[in-house]
Amino acid sequence: MATAADTAAMRRAVALAARGLGSTSPNPVVGCVVADASGHLVGEGFHERAGGPHAEVGALRAAGPRARGGTAYVTLEPCNHTGRTGPCAQALIEAGVARVVYAVADPNPQARGGADTLRAAGVRVEQGLLEDEAEAGNTAWLTAVRLGRPHVTWKYAATLDGRVAARDGSSRWITSAESRADVHRLRAESDAVVVGSGTLRADDPHLAVRGIEGVTQPLRVVLDSRASVLPTARVLDGAAPTLIAVAEDADTRHLPGVGIARLPAGERGIAVHALLAELHRRGVRSVLLEGGPTLAGSFVAAGAVDRVVGYLAPVLLGAGPAALADAGITTITEALRLDVNATDRIGPDLRVTATVPKGA
Amino acid sequence: MATAADTAAMRRAVALAARGLGSTSPNPVVGCVVADASGHLVGEGFHERAGGPHAEVGALRAAGPRARGGTAYVTLEPCNHTGRTGPCAQALIEAGVARVVYAVADPNPQARGGADTLRAAGVRVEQGLLEDEAEAGNTAWLTAVRLGRPHVTWKYAATLDGRVAARDGSSRWITSAESRADVHRLRAESDAVVVGSGTLRADDPHLAVRGIEGVTQPLRVVLDSRASVLPTARVLDGAAPTLIAVAEDADTRHLPGVGIARLPAGERGIAVHALLAELHRRGVRSVLLEGGPTLAGSFVAAGAVDRVVGYLAPVLLGAGPAALADAGITTITEALRLDVNATDRIGPDLRVTATVPKGA
Ligand SMILES: NC(=O)c1ccc[n+]([C@@H]2O[C@H](COP(=O)([O-])OP(=O)(O)OC[C@H]3O[C@@H](n4cnc5c(N)ncnc54)[C@H](OP(=O)(O)O)[C@@H]3O)[C@@H](O)[C@H]2O)c1
Ligand SMILES: NC(=O)c1ccc[n+]([C@@H]2O[C@H](COP(=O)([O-])OP(=O)(O)OC[C@H]3O[C@@H](n4cnc5c(N)ncnc54)[C@H](OP(=O)(O)O)[C@@H]3O)[C@@H](O)[C@H]2O)c1
Repeated sequence: MATAADTAAMRRAVALAARGLGSTSPNPVVGCVVADASGHLVGEGFHERAGGPHAEVGALRAAGPRARGGTAYVTLEPCNHTGRTGPCAQALIEAGVARVVYAVADPNPQARGGADTLRAAGVRVEQGLLEDEAEAGNTAWLTAVRLGRPHVTWKYAATLDGRVAARDGSSRWITSAESRADVHRLRAESDAVVVGSGTLRADDPHLAVRGIEGVTQPLRVVLDSRASVLPTARVLDGAAPTLIAVAEDADTRHLPGVGIARLPAGERGIAVHALLAELHRRGVRSVLLEGGPTLAGSFVAAGAVDRVVGYLAPVLLGAGPAALADAGITTITEALRLDVNATDRIGPDLRVTATVPKGA
Repeated sequence: MATAADTAAMRRAVALAARGLGSTSPNPVVGCVVADASGHLVGEGFHERAGGPHAEVGALRAAGPRARGGTAYVTLEPCNHTGRTGPCAQALIEAGVARVVYAVADPNPQARGGADTLRAAGVRVEQGLLEDEAEAGNTAWLTAVRLGRPHVTWKYAATLDGRVAARDGSSRWITSAESRADVHRLRAESDAVVVGSGTLRADDPHLAVRGIEGVTQPLRVVLDSRASVLPTARVLDGAAPTLIAVAEDADTRHLPGVGIARLPAGERGIAVHALLAELHRRGVRSVLLEGGPTLAGSFVAAGAVDRVVGYLAPVLLGAGPAALADAGITTITEALRLDVNATDRIGPDLRVTATVPKGA
């Protein structure tokens, strides 16, 4: 049975885990809190980046000898494999921890088994405390393990009547500075940011994260079948890595030194699942789709949107392109119904966060 | 100086006033609470319907002799004129009330002067307590006094990508049963409900209020230049009064016994301001615009929308008509920017309530 103190410690571990969002891929985010034998919190840690120490190792290091006889709270089942760092289950045993409470079982076949190892060494092991919260914090990684493709968040900014630009194409700025800053936070939490060539031509976006200290920049990805991107495009500067996804036969001679992925064609442009497979192969576990209505329509049609974050400005236009173009839906019963997770006011705007139900 | 007890009494009066919404036009909604000399609440009342007793009269009647030496809290300046009921200022004086606290000054030239009459009779008079709340409760009526036309609320139901129907025109139901019930509440608070002939043809809507006890049914209004409405249309049944607004030369011989208003043509269909003037003449102070995107575009273009209530379903369509059609806005700097008053979850949907800033 979990006590209030157990719950508080796990809540702290979940919060710690979130600090790693956007920089741990292909690893999950993990947070860990260690309490001594009398229940005082004596160490905490989180997984900061792939290749860096695991959360448990950081927390045990901070706790030192006080970990002996104590409890470790971990958001994910401690790993059992020896990767770039030693297995955490072993580290917990060596530190003399008497009890391990973890929230989510590791679905990753190579990492699984940590709980068994701990039990075999006489450690008391409990699973499931704050499981939902911990799962939510690791959604991208868990989706990627389950589906073998990155988790995709489609972000859009629109008016209350669903427009992303006015009749003449003008669109700066529909949403507020606060919403735009919030988008930088979303980018910072993502491994890759994706746009189509339409957005590139219209906006020449930069797509790097600004205004957040110590951030791991996401991979900037442009879907651009004919390699139409100009060598002077802002997305090609050195602020973050960039990948141009082009058709297999595209001429890219004007782009020396630029990262290029040649991908098969889909129904419209680059095949969405081929792109996602390529990104997964490169270690990307979370994608922020920042493209225009066309690209978003393709992703929705391909069943490749997991989460939607809409910034709705309290503005009416009455004309101009809609936020989402053809997604292959022709009648109301085929509509994509989402589960709303949260609605928040961001400056004058409204942010709606919703998930696509599994199997939709 | 208002005490906490004064504020509580006025808050109650504001709540009482709201009960009259939708049935007092062309009068305002008014609530009144009477406290005895020692501050105990001894009577309350509200204006229920035009021709019925004013709020002060109801409250004084309930208080009886206990009103003597006490305080009356009224949401609107007590009237001074003798209409269908006697002037309330006089009634308060006769009841021996020592102090009158009212929230909003009466902007209506025929009613004004109540405060002066009270003061002349030696009653202490204070104005301004909870003025904003009381104003908000009387927005429709105050707008009508100020602008000489009814207050207009545009209500729409759309998907997150701003669609009101799917590609094939199907639209039942985008929003939830909860949202649809909430629309009945909006209707009940309105003096008239307005749609265009497009909505009539597509949906054959009934437009009467269902599911609310003792409601005053709104006037159902259809903008239908060529009098295309069929005699069998549901909107022509006996559940509520109905007015078909047609062009001056429309042939209405197939509609014997149906209320018809012949109105001048505007840029598209019936001239919006001519319609609103006609409705105002008929005592309508608040209009709920439930038409389709075309009619809403006309009203926005005419500067005749005061409030917007959007029901956003967590649904994506990617095709189909947008919630708002041409409103004469061509570039982003001309966009109509609203002030959001509230965002609420209604069942699975999101309700956004926003006002059009004065002068926009
Ligand atoms: N408000 C917002 O949230 C927001 C965000 C982004 C953009 N925008 C606006 O959206 C407008 C641009 O719209 P857009 O729809 O043209 O931009 P887009 O969706 O970013 O780009 C569409 C283009 O991407 C390429 N593409 C490659 N693979 C694709 C695939 N599988 N599916 C779809 N497209 C693929 C296609 O061109 P190729 O044939 O060249 O490959 C396609 O024409 C601009 O006005 C921009 O300002 C708004
Ligand atoms: N989701 C929602 O909130 C909602 C609400 C209502 C309707 N709808 C949907 O909207 C669709 C109908 O759209 P709609 O735009 O055709 O309907 P509408 O706006 O209700 O009707 C438009 C028609 O009204 C007449 N009209 C008269 N005076 C007008 C004026 N000043 N301005 C504009 N129109 C005037 C015009 O026809 P005449 O020339 O015959 O006068 C015009 O074609 C249907 O699919 C319906 O289901 C959705």
